[in-house]
Amino acid sequence: MSQVRVHNFSISLDGFGTGEGLTLEAPFGHAGERLHEWMVATRFFHTMTGETGGSAGVDNVFAERHEPGIGAEIMGRGKFGPPQQGPWTDIGTDAEWRGWWGPNPPFHTPVFVLTHYPRPSIEMEGGTTFHFVDASPQEALELAREAAGDLDVRIGGGPTIVRDFLAADLIDYLHIVQAPLLLGRGVRLWDGLEGIEERFDVEVISSPRGVTHITMTRRQGE
Amino acid sequence: MSQVRVHNFSISLDGFGTGEGLTLEAPFGHAGERLHEWMVATRFFHTMTGETGGSAGVDNVFAERHEPGIGAEIMGRGKFGPPQQGPWTDIGTDAEWRGWWGPNPPFHTPVFVLTHYPRPSIEMEGGTTFHFVDASPQEALELAREAAGDLDVRIGGGPTIVRDFLAADLIDYLHIVQAPLLLGRGVRLWDGLEGIEERFDVEVISSPRGVTHITMTRRQGE
Repeated sequence: MSQVRVHNFSISLDGFGTGEGLTLEAPFGHAGERLHEWMVATRFFHTMTGETGGSAGVDNVFAERHEPGIGAEIMGRGKFGPPQQGPWTDIGTDAEWRGWWGPNPPFHTPVFVLTHYPRPSIEMEGGTTFHFVDASPQEALELAREAAGDLDVRIGGGPTIVRDFLAADLIDYLHIVQAPLLLGRGVRLWDGLEGIEERFDVEVISSPRGVTHITMTRRQGE
Repeated sequence: MSQVRVHNFSISLDGFGTGEGLTLEAPFGHAGERLHEWMVATRFFHTMTGETGGSAGVDNVFAERHEPGIGAEIMGRGKFGPPQQGPWTDIGTDAEWRGWWGPNPPFHTPVFVLTHYPRPSIEMEGGTTFHFVDASPQEALELAREAAGDLDVRIGGGPTIVRDFLAADLIDYLHIVQAPLLLGRGVRLWDGLEGIEERFDVEVISSPRGVTHITMTRRQGE
């Protein structure tokens, strides 16, 4: 059976996966880029953005696991585009939103965007197609598994989506990166997840850069 | 100037410094002993309780820093005794509460217990005297500094007390230990402390046991 994985999901010391005040210009709100500085510094990120260099240590070996073996991603509407609620207003217009990532997004697989307002799929260059589905975590996972074939499904975030999939006990592998800062406000990852660590083997390793990699791997047979 | 220090303060992955449902039998509520297992395993703790053995690695070297150079502690009423509010009802009775720690508590210094209901001091064996004061963090620190002479003052907890002293910018050195479990409910340490990391040098180191030691050391001149 294919696995359901979360990679490189960054939170603050106080547990926020994104800040407050999200806009087109500030996708993570007042958090800015601070949660992800560790990743921007890696060779993984440099390569993805067409640059050379970048760190190649523990942060990078974790970061690189984002891609291999993934056949589909599930993300929230809040990850796909700037904050908006209700029916989409841009379909067919010149301003139609096609994601933050340019014409060739770094997914290269089907991506299922959870929204209460389905809309036609958007096919991008490089193998990424955005599908928009109004579905429960279980239903979305069924669609994504079918699309992924033998490969794994990545849960891409934001924090509410990761939390919902954890609460529904659908995650096999969780990689969280805790950055050494206090956001004070935003959307928390861990709310309402009392005791879930009992289903996982938990490992923790700090990196020289000052972030902490937390991995939770589902125990065999559980 | 003497320093104000926090040592060995344990929280869960989701940031709770104590659980819910605190009683005489369960001083940390539903958290039980889980937040402090790392410390119970150390040589520091074994020695304190008159045993031999215990781990002597990174967890222990942090744990042992709890004592040296400390001349007074400040704690909340919730650390001193089982949960109760309002006027003390046990003064002068056979059931008078004298702390969790037996006749010779492990402080060996004056201890200032913050409470809105002052009561006579309690002198214990081994140099510990409990003083009960209705004071702001600043006022309590002034009293503790006077009692400590040239030595440092430890802020002993619980989470509300540590948070209040952090919010008032009175802490010079903070040592937090994050245990790999999710409590889901209780009292959070980090609430309302957005951006305080900017005043500190932050270091993070995970231990083979799976806990993460976070130290925040006030920057020189700040």
